[in-house]
Amino acid sequence: MVLGHEAAGVVSKVGSSVTNVKVGDRVAMEPGATCRKCEACKEGRYQLCPDVIFAATPPTDGTLARYYRLPSDLAYPLPPNLSLEDGAMTEPLSVAVHAVSKLGALRSNQSVAIFGCGPVGLLCMAVAKALGASRVIAVDIVPGRLEFAKAYAATDVFLPPPMEKDESRVAFSMRNAQAMKEKLGIADRGPQAIDLVLDASGAEVSIQTGIRVVKSGGTYVQVGMGSPNVNIDMFVVICKELVLKGSFRYGPGDYPLAIALAASGKVDVKPLVSHRFPFTQAREAFETTRNGKSPDGKGVIKAIISGPDVDINEA
Amino acid sequence: MVLGHEAAGVVSKVGSSVTNVKVGDRVAMEPGATCRKCEACKEGRYQLCPDVIFAATPPTDGTLARYYRLPSDLAYPLPPNLSLEDGAMTEPLSVAVHAVSKLGALRSNQSVAIFGCGPVGLLCMAVAKALGASRVIAVDIVPGRLEFAKAYAATDVFLPPPMEKDESRVAFSMRNAQAMKEKLGIADRGPQAIDLVLDASGAEVSIQTGIRVVKSGGTYVQVGMGSPNVNIDMFVVICKELVLKGSFRYGPGDYPLAIALAASGKVDVKPLVSHRFPFTQAREAFETTRNGKSPDGKGVIKAIISGPDVDINEA
Amino acid sequence: MVLGHEAAGVVSKVGSSVTNVKVGDRVAMEPGATCRKCEACKEGRYQLCPDVIFAATPPTDGTLARYYRLPSDLAYPLPPNLSLEDGAMTEPLSVAVHAVSKLGALRSNQSVAIFGCGPVGLLCMAVAKALGASRVIAVDIVPGRLEFAKAYAATDVFLPPPMEKDESRVAFSMRNAQAMKEKLGIADRGPQAIDLVLDASGAEVSIQTGIRVVKSGGTYVQVGMGSPNVNIDMFVVICKELVLKGSFRYGPGDYPLAIALAASGKVDVKPLVSHRFPFTQAREAFETTRNGKSPDGKGVIKAIISGPDVDINEA
Amino acid sequence: MVLGHEAAGVVSKVGSSVTNVKVGDRVAMEPGATCRKCEACKEGRYQLCPDVIFAATPPTDGTLARYYRLPSDLAYPLPPNLSLEDGAMTEPLSVAVHAVSKLGALRSNQSVAIFGCGPVGLLCMAVAKALGASRVIAVDIVPGRLEFAKAYAATDVFLPPPMEKDESRVAFSMRNAQAMKEKLGIADRGPQAIDLVLDASGAEVSIQTGIRVVKSGGTYVQVGMGSPNVNIDMFVVICKELVLKGSFRYGPGDYPLAIALAASGKVDVKPLVSHRFPFTQAREAFETTRNGKSPDGKGVIKAIISGPDVDINEA
Repeated sequence: MVLGHEAAGVVSKVGSSVTNVKVGDRVAMEPGATCRKCEACKEGRYQLCPDVIFAATPPTDGTLARYYRLPSDLAYPLPPNLSLEDGAMTEPLSVAVHAVSKLGALRSNQSVAIFGCGPVGLLCMAVAKALGASRVIAVDIVPGRLEFAKAYAATDVFLPPPMEKDESRVAFSMRNAQAMKEKLGIADRGPQAIDLVLDASGAEVSIQTGIRVVKSGGTYVQVGMGSPNVNIDMFVVICKELVLKGSFRYGPGDYPLAIALAASGKVDVKPLVSHRFPFTQAREAFETTRNGKSPDGKGVIKAIISGPDVDINEA
Repeated sequence: MVLGHEAAGVVSKVGSSVTNVKVGDRVAMEPGATCRKCEACKEGRYQLCPDVIFAATPPTDGTLARYYRLPSDLAYPLPPNLSLEDGAMTEPLSVAVHAVSKLGALRSNQSVAIFGCGPVGLLCMAVAKALGASRVIAVDIVPGRLEFAKAYAATDVFLPPPMEKDESRVAFSMRNAQAMKEKLGIADRGPQAIDLVLDASGAEVSIQTGIRVVKSGGTYVQVGMGSPNVNIDMFVVICKELVLKGSFRYGPGDYPLAIALAASGKVDVKPLVSHRFPFTQAREAFETTRNGKSPDGKGVIKAIISGPDVDINEA
Repeated sequence: MVLGHEAAGVVSKVGSSVTNVKVGDRVAMEPGATCRKCEACKEGRYQLCPDVIFAATPPTDGTLARYYRLPSDLAYPLPPNLSLEDGAMTEPLSVAVHAVSKLGALRSNQSVAIFGCGPVGLLCMAVAKALGASRVIAVDIVPGRLEFAKAYAATDVFLPPPMEKDESRVAFSMRNAQAMKEKLGIADRGPQAIDLVLDASGAEVSIQTGIRVVKSGGTYVQVGMGSPNVNIDMFVVICKELVLKGSFRYGPGDYPLAIALAASGKVDVKPLVSHRFPFTQAREAFETTRNGKSPDGKGVIKAIISGPDVDINEA
Repeated sequence: MVLGHEAAGVVSKVGSSVTNVKVGDRVAMEPGATCRKCEACKEGRYQLCPDVIFAATPPTDGTLARYYRLPSDLAYPLPPNLSLEDGAMTEPLSVAVHAVSKLGALRSNQSVAIFGCGPVGLLCMAVAKALGASRVIAVDIVPGRLEFAKAYAATDVFLPPPMEKDESRVAFSMRNAQAMKEKLGIADRGPQAIDLVLDASGAEVSIQTGIRVVKSGGTYVQVGMGSPNVNIDMFVVICKELVLKGSFRYGPGDYPLAIALAASGKVDVKPLVSHRFPFTQAREAFETTRNGKSPDGKGVIKAIISGPDVDINEA
């Protein structure tokens, strides 16, 4: 099966009734073609369409190909100041927009903590900053990733203490949350409280800690996949009347907002592109990503594979 | 310490500026006096006030007394067709109103499943029915409680199959959810789907099952306290974009709606009063409730203790 | 041009990929086929689609024909207890559902006032009652229509006093609102206040009065077309922080809820069908409706025209 | 009666249970002390409290005095980088925050048009810009005010054409809206559409134009008082399903957000302070404001009167 669902391209052919794009346009490609007639599609939550045709999801081939056919409304013209690479990055950026802006409903001057400094976590931080968050706290267990997050979009970082031998994950999450609150001056209420927590790590301890550090009455959004079974303290969920939301892909308006944030310069996706490969070296790209670093030791955030007709030096 | 926080009474004295009630009025008593000036109080979520003075919560004495002092706006006059017992039942009914109407935002013609047939679960069913739910599914592991629920407010009941030896709770919850869907014709989407699940049991298996049976894009409300650590399948939460909410006590408008639903006859709290005790037998009331049944074998749902000046036969 | 957009029918042919209906099914027909790819369609407000193809709206012919072609998801199977007439009435009932339930967001135990007792106003009353409104106040200037409303779905009625000579409409609306408040015991706040006002008359005086009788912080929905220029007291809108909404046709979920309310018996559309005509007398049906009554003097609410193959006595 | 409701001061005395401020603190003063126990106060909309005690609203004296008594939670400590003048400006800034952020619910990358370039209109523009609006269009009939708006916070300005002799205000508003759309490239839908219109002028023609230029499905907020009777085209309100909201003062969270926006530098209120007077020249301050300009011809936006103990040169 052909892989690839984070993609941009140049329009090579359009149907006779297409008006929003024309041959030669550079476009970001939204990879999920939904049915448009189920309850979810009609009610404005097409991300829940059960009949979606999604790139690189069996039996549908992905975008890592010379040509890819897409409904025209899922091809978003890129403004002149965005490259095809920026266009490909629109996909993970839309995941972040969906989680932070639509589900998290983050508003100006709110505080947010984001667990996990992989690509999606970093993009969530960038979106939070772009939306006017007064505080963007990055949490990760790898110091180097926190450094990157701080340089990129976070206002604060937190490196959890090591888990002790024989310490349960629940006990550790309580100690971790307490340490985080003390170090960063986080309160349960008021201006020092955290309005929104997003977890982009999927790690049980992160989820447990996130629920403990978010404010009373706050919102928690799960955007990272991970262990399917996570021990949650429902007592905390009840007493703080938390709202926990699962975030899945992106829905109406997320791609447009992602492109607008990138085009306006409020979000810069370029620093996340750590590696670039020509089309013929796609295999090396995947191997490099799997290894987490290239042979020269440079850590991978995102690796971009150019199209077959693209000179990688001009992308 | 004096116990009691589900109470009604007769006004014996009012402050000079009180206008909403007068001496002699029969009133339902909302037991939490909030600070009225914190962020939570001002923003319309006084249930999250950190400085609440709540009856029978240390160091505050409870309502099981001849006199109890209450801010006048927390004393709600009972209409003539509601008794003092109905008034005392307004407290748990408000818990149900808060969970079903405010947080669950149940609307007419929606389907709801409620796990746990104790008093709060039963009242949630009654509120769901009163709000026009097309289907109210009761789940409990005690057949007799399901019978009561069916006669009281449920349209459907489900008795989970027994858990098998060596079966994990997660595995059991998957099997349980599947059995429930098949028996009751529940779908993941469309008119046969469950829009809202409430858990009033606090049991891990109920919570796990509830998250599996609620529809894609649906809402889950936790109203029952139980095990603080519950294994949740975050994969399901993400892929269905569920919204999970913790429900804590009651907030603005919940007591008034509870009284209105009872006064209009849409909710009948009387069938839940299984036992009555005079003031002097308060100890027996608590013991009976702890035992779960009276010496004559009659199961306890709610036991009411009359006030010291009330003839129990006239309550 | 062929007229007709309130219609039901029997499926005579389906496309090869249609699964939700089959030949012979009796269906209610939603008359607007939207583009499914514009911002409005994707965001769950397809009623605002600029490219909708709507029955009997130039250049599209209407449903008053032997055959009408419709996307299959706009054909809603009628349950056995609903007739084709009920199906045709689903269209105006959906207008009411959209205005009362979706935009008005009416909840159980709220009070509502509805101005205008034509078909849409009456159906709004029926929907309000079905959704659990504690009070449904009908307002009209024709006593006979108020009588009908009271017998049909209203709990209270109000006949405005006559407008005095030389009295401005603004002055009259103030006097009218005051008279209405006094007669019906309406307050600006609290349980005696009106939570929601709908205007289905389009008359300036009704609109002006409605804004004055709705509670502080309340909602006003305009569902009836009328004079395009209406004098509004913006001072009242500001000081009460009113929310005024325009209601246009119906959107996602409105047809299904309309059918469910009719099927469950919560709304009975039959009393509104005052006249019936065979297909060959369509001209007489329109003339009767224009005259407002049939030659025998019976007032018209709704006149139904049967299809060409239907024996009117069996509809 | 003593005037003044836009004020800041230094705490001179506190009650024994006050903890949020102490003697000597510089504070912004929210001028409305609400009852905290009515439905509006409890539900999080204290701006609608009927029993509010508001500075300079009969029979309550205003803040233009040496001492003013205020509930402590309405005294907001000013961060070091905000002056007492900034503190006094928090009042009109909170009006703008309430209209733009809370009622308008403006989100990042949306477009907004604001009619009227007086202090509240200008502050609405500043808040819109601070919240990330991609386009902030200022409309006024005075070119100099538009210049100020452009330099201050607007991205675009529009000077309406002159009204023609014998042209009705309705006809003019249609022509005006068309001219505005053409000049600024405004569409009814999509990225070139205006998501939110605020009117801070109160002028009928502005209101009429605003309703015509806002997008289909958009929101209109009335924040400026003006003529109580305004001719509205309800046909437009219906067909675009507009939501019109009246904005009254400010509610929970508005003062804190206003202070945060000023403290972070996202909103700069200083350019709006055009004139300063010592306490003994309060009369001249009011006369200057009434005249619209000082004797030297400088136009008035806001005139600040210093307290009796403040050296105006050190404010």
